[in-house]
Amino acid sequence: MRGHLKPFKDYQAAHFLFETSKDGRVATIRLNRPERKNPLTFESYAELRDLFRDLTYASDIRAVVITGAGDNFSSGGDVFEIIEPLTQMAMPDLIAFTRMTGDLVKAMKKCPQPIIAAVDGICAGAGAILAMASDMRLATPEAKTAFLFTRVGLAGADMGACGILPRIIGQGRAAELLYTGRSMNAAEGERWGFFNALYERATLEDEAKKLAKSLADGPWFAHSMTKTMLNQEWAMGLDEMIESEAQAQAICMATGDFRRAFEAFAAKQRPVFEGN
Amino acid sequence: MRGHLKPFKDYQAAHFLFETSKDGRVATIRLNRPERKNPLTFESYAELRDLFRDLTYASDIRAVVITGAGDNFSSGGDVFEIIEPLTQMAMPDLIAFTRMTGDLVKAMKKCPQPIIAAVDGICAGAGAILAMASDMRLATPEAKTAFLFTRVGLAGADMGACGILPRIIGQGRAAELLYTGRSMNAAEGERWGFFNALYERATLEDEAKKLAKSLADGPWFAHSMTKTMLNQEWAMGLDEMIESEAQAQAICMATGDFRRAFEAFAAKQRPVFEGN
Amino acid sequence: MRGHLKPFKDYQAAHFLFETSKDGRVATIRLNRPERKNPLTFESYAELRDLFRDLTYASDIRAVVITGAGDNFSSGGDVFEIIEPLTQMAMPDLIAFTRMTGDLVKAMKKCPQPIIAAVDGICAGAGAILAMASDMRLATPEAKTAFLFTRVGLAGADMGACGILPRIIGQGRAAELLYTGRSMNAAEGERWGFFNALYERATLEDEAKKLAKSLADGPWFAHSMTKTMLNQEWAMGLDEMIESEAQAQAICMATGDFRRAFEAFAAKQRPVFEGN
Repeated sequence: MRGHLKPFKDYQAAHFLFETSKDGRVATIRLNRPERKNPLTFESYAELRDLFRDLTYASDIRAVVITGAGDNFSSGGDVFEIIEPLTQMAMPDLIAFTRMTGDLVKAMKKCPQPIIAAVDGICAGAGAILAMASDMRLATPEAKTAFLFTRVGLAGADMGACGILPRIIGQGRAAELLYTGRSMNAAEGERWGFFNALYERATLEDEAKKLAKSLADGPWFAHSMTKTMLNQEWAMGLDEMIESEAQAQAICMATGDFRRAFEAFAAKQRPVFEGN
Repeated sequence: MRGHLKPFKDYQAAHFLFETSKDGRVATIRLNRPERKNPLTFESYAELRDLFRDLTYASDIRAVVITGAGDNFSSGGDVFEIIEPLTQMAMPDLIAFTRMTGDLVKAMKKCPQPIIAAVDGICAGAGAILAMASDMRLATPEAKTAFLFTRVGLAGADMGACGILPRIIGQGRAAELLYTGRSMNAAEGERWGFFNALYERATLEDEAKKLAKSLADGPWFAHSMTKTMLNQEWAMGLDEMIESEAQAQAICMATGDFRRAFEAFAAKQRPVFEGN
Repeated sequence: MRGHLKPFKDYQAAHFLFETSKDGRVATIRLNRPERKNPLTFESYAELRDLFRDLTYASDIRAVVITGAGDNFSSGGDVFEIIEPLTQMAMPDLIAFTRMTGDLVKAMKKCPQPIIAAVDGICAGAGAILAMASDMRLATPEAKTAFLFTRVGLAGADMGACGILPRIIGQGRAAELLYTGRSMNAAEGERWGFFNALYERATLEDEAKKLAKSLADGPWFAHSMTKTMLNQEWAMGLDEMIESEAQAQAICMATGDFRRAFEAFAAKQRPVFEGN
């Protein structure tokens, strides 16, 4: 039955770095063109989309950290590698591009692993979207997050930002960031609920990996259900939310992990979860 | 016409304490197994569900305070009285259980009375859900709120939490609490909008009852419409929200309470509301 | 093709002041009965609704500031000019009134210009709704915002408040303001995300106009798309949000403004946007 699963331990990324923890459970994706502050290109967009889609079938990876090399997260879509070609494209190519970037967000939302963004320095444009589309966000005091689409003459409506950002920081604050393109500093980000916590640069990545490990060591099947439901219920009425969670939680109660957790509790031991 | 209504002044609760204020307008529900930090059991879940359903027909009760005995709110579903039996159940019994607990949240959302949770000490698992499902929440600085379903191998998707909690504290903070099961302290709860205010232990319950009394002495028919609409509009588009409120408010404008409020204002008196 | 557009530079308002900036791009609406704290009347409601509807066809106005005269924003629906007649009306007239006020909010949400509320002093009832329905809100430390419908025996469900306010400040805080009618002070408003920033009275209006001018000098066609999508996606699922933004942004990528912004960037110049 689990023949559809495969390990990602030896996955070779072409357009970013991909590493796994010693136990193989936590993957770290590191955007890695530090001299340009880790911009995205057509190729890295597509590879990220494919990777997150494929992670649905990972036999090993249970949580993901996404970060950038060299004290920056990502400067977003490269001006000369992405923006310039887009200004020349016909509509069918434009919509193909915006659907591809949107598909990256969909893939991040649909893979079963919780995703933790570790944000330092510049986090701009599509980079800010990657952070926004993650499940949780940690940052340094130096993080500067800007949804700067407006600076290149575009709408704030990019990859779901007009719908997703208001759910994280509220409609009024999201409107300001999306209309003005101004940078949200790290303290604002923490105060507004965009960042879950701030850490010094020296410890940020360790903290993100520690959080990822704690989730990976936890009941990861149940975590994947938490993720599904956090994303599934945005447009449901209250009754539908409650019925859909009754079903989702009943599924989790039928798992061995639930029994294992109870038995460990009764025996005053630490539970070992198996994801089944 | 009002023959379907009945008083709750003398309601006898089997699995918690139920008391009413002298004027009979404010009910206080007190979970009352302080030696175990007021856990919920199959029986108390069911009785709470039935009580909140029946409060729809109360002739006297206009606001509800829910709290716990002995400096704790509630430790949630009891490990040996609820969790252990659940680990042995077949699917039809599991879904019957999760639907029953979900029905409690639905009943809290659908009764016409505003519900104020007064939270001290431990507020965990299903206890945290009871607080979340209330309309407003007051707490002491000692309140520790944890959606700790993940600790027993389950999803954060319990009784509507993945849909409701993000609407109260934002999607990012809700994700952290539901994935990690960690305790939210009282200061965080106030800063994030989970708690409306913090009070010292000695005054918490008085403050909750004072707030409840101010609502009970107000236009309680209109309050019940506020509650209905706060819950009804979660999945509506803007146009539908505005039309549905045009109808809801027109109903309220046709009440005697609206006229009474105007006449009292014009006469520089305090209005006396009759709920009709 | 643009024959449906017309200038608003010389628009003469009957029930409030309407002024435009020197370059004609920013309109300021000033409620102007300072001796009564700028209440709304049947006539001013209707004129505001018609103005915001007509702004859809403005050839000149790209951003709107709404404010009040004499150190107050607005005291809301006048007690003797609005509340008293309403207490005498039959249902068809009541629903006609609540639909008219709702239509004002719809018109504010549907005009293409971002709206910035500049709030000083009293901001109550329908005045608080006008601020809530704006895209962004600036205020002075003296701003007092109260959704005080409950004080006249009505529901908080007025002009969309039960649906819109929770999206701005969270469900728990919105419930408190709508049930109790209590005043939210300026510091709370900023902390909760209702106000984007606070400024001293002497600078508030300049700051609001500066922000409006920065938007008017920006890619205003794209801003109008940002506004559309911020309002359009409230009841969409994640997939639908992302697809609808893929389409919206592809439209913006087909504009000359997108190309102009890139060319200005490449030439290290400041882009001049033309809205096409």
